[in-house]
Amino acid sequence: MGFDFGLFCVFLAACAAAAATGSMFMPGRWYDDLAKPTWNPPNWVFPVVWSILYLLIAASASRVAGAPGSAYAMAFWGLQIALNTLWTPVFFGLQRIKAGMLIIVLLWLAVAGCLVATFRVEPFAGLLLVPYLIWVSIAASLNWSVWRLNPEEANKPRPAEG
Amino acid sequence: MGFDFGLFCVFLAACAAAAATGSMFMPGRWYDDLAKPTWNPPNWVFPVVWSILYLLIAASASRVAGAPGSAYAMAFWGLQIALNTLWTPVFFGLQRIKAGMLIIVLLWLAVAGCLVATFRVEPFAGLLLVPYLIWVSIAASLNWSVWRLNPEEANKPRPAEG
Repeated sequence: MGFDFGLFCVFLAACAAAAATGSMFMPGRWYDDLAKPTWNPPNWVFPVVWSILYLLIAASASRVAGAPGSAYAMAFWGLQIALNTLWTPVFFGLQRIKAGMLIIVLLWLAVAGCLVATFRVEPFAGLLLVPYLIWVSIAASLNWSVWRLNPEEANKPRPAEG
Repeated sequence: MGFDFGLFCVFLAACAAAAATGSMFMPGRWYDDLAKPTWNPPNWVFPVVWSILYLLIAASASRVAGAPGSAYAMAFWGLQIALNTLWTPVFFGLQRIKAGMLIIVLLWLAVAGCLVATFRVEPFAGLLLVPYLIWVSIAASLNWSVWRLNPEEANKPRPAEG
């Protein structure tokens, strides 16, 4: 399993679609005013970490795509990139803290599934996803803390949809 | 290449994440008030068509995932599901008609790439994506028409982000 640069670029384009949510649905005033845990990382950390993670996520997939036994690795890869794209508009766009928590728990499970399935095809490619799983764990803890520290905001009634 | 139901379910879960945007970012009053082309389908058509398409998209991927030569099919599958998840929050959530147009053009290219790459692995699985490409063509035409019929809305100044 060598390195196919064209293939890497297509996977990276999928990551770019997920990353685009970060520039279009910004935290803004609403998020700034919420109570955060003491260990909340400074804002500049997030785009830096995600840029590195997206490179690793694309590199991991491009090493195992098409390899024998890679079916579940690819299915979980598709699931994690869809959930990754979904979280930001729901959390920062709709300001729905509890729906964001549900999505990030599902994302954690998808990344864990992707890591295990990828590791079985090529251990190195699976290990490339370890930082991603760690970071989603941190992000999920942060989503959880924001929920618990801002119960009124998390439970505020939603306007009727549509 | 038989049918692996578990694999189908993981791909379908990715489609469900994309579909979730449709229930969380509804067209609403803003979209109702925009001018539409005469051929605009009635509202009930969209969830019906998308439900069928998502089943086909998941079925197509589950037939070729892990097969020899499926690397690009899987990469484009990941790209299309991320772009599919992105369009609804940008168009209906942010009400950004031109950004939506850019995303749906990229989505069309990703679906076309996925169809061709999948067809090369298994022609039947590629053909399962033909209705998807046709529908994205229609949706892109609708996005374009809404832009041209509502130039003031498409060009309205954006509030500063963040």
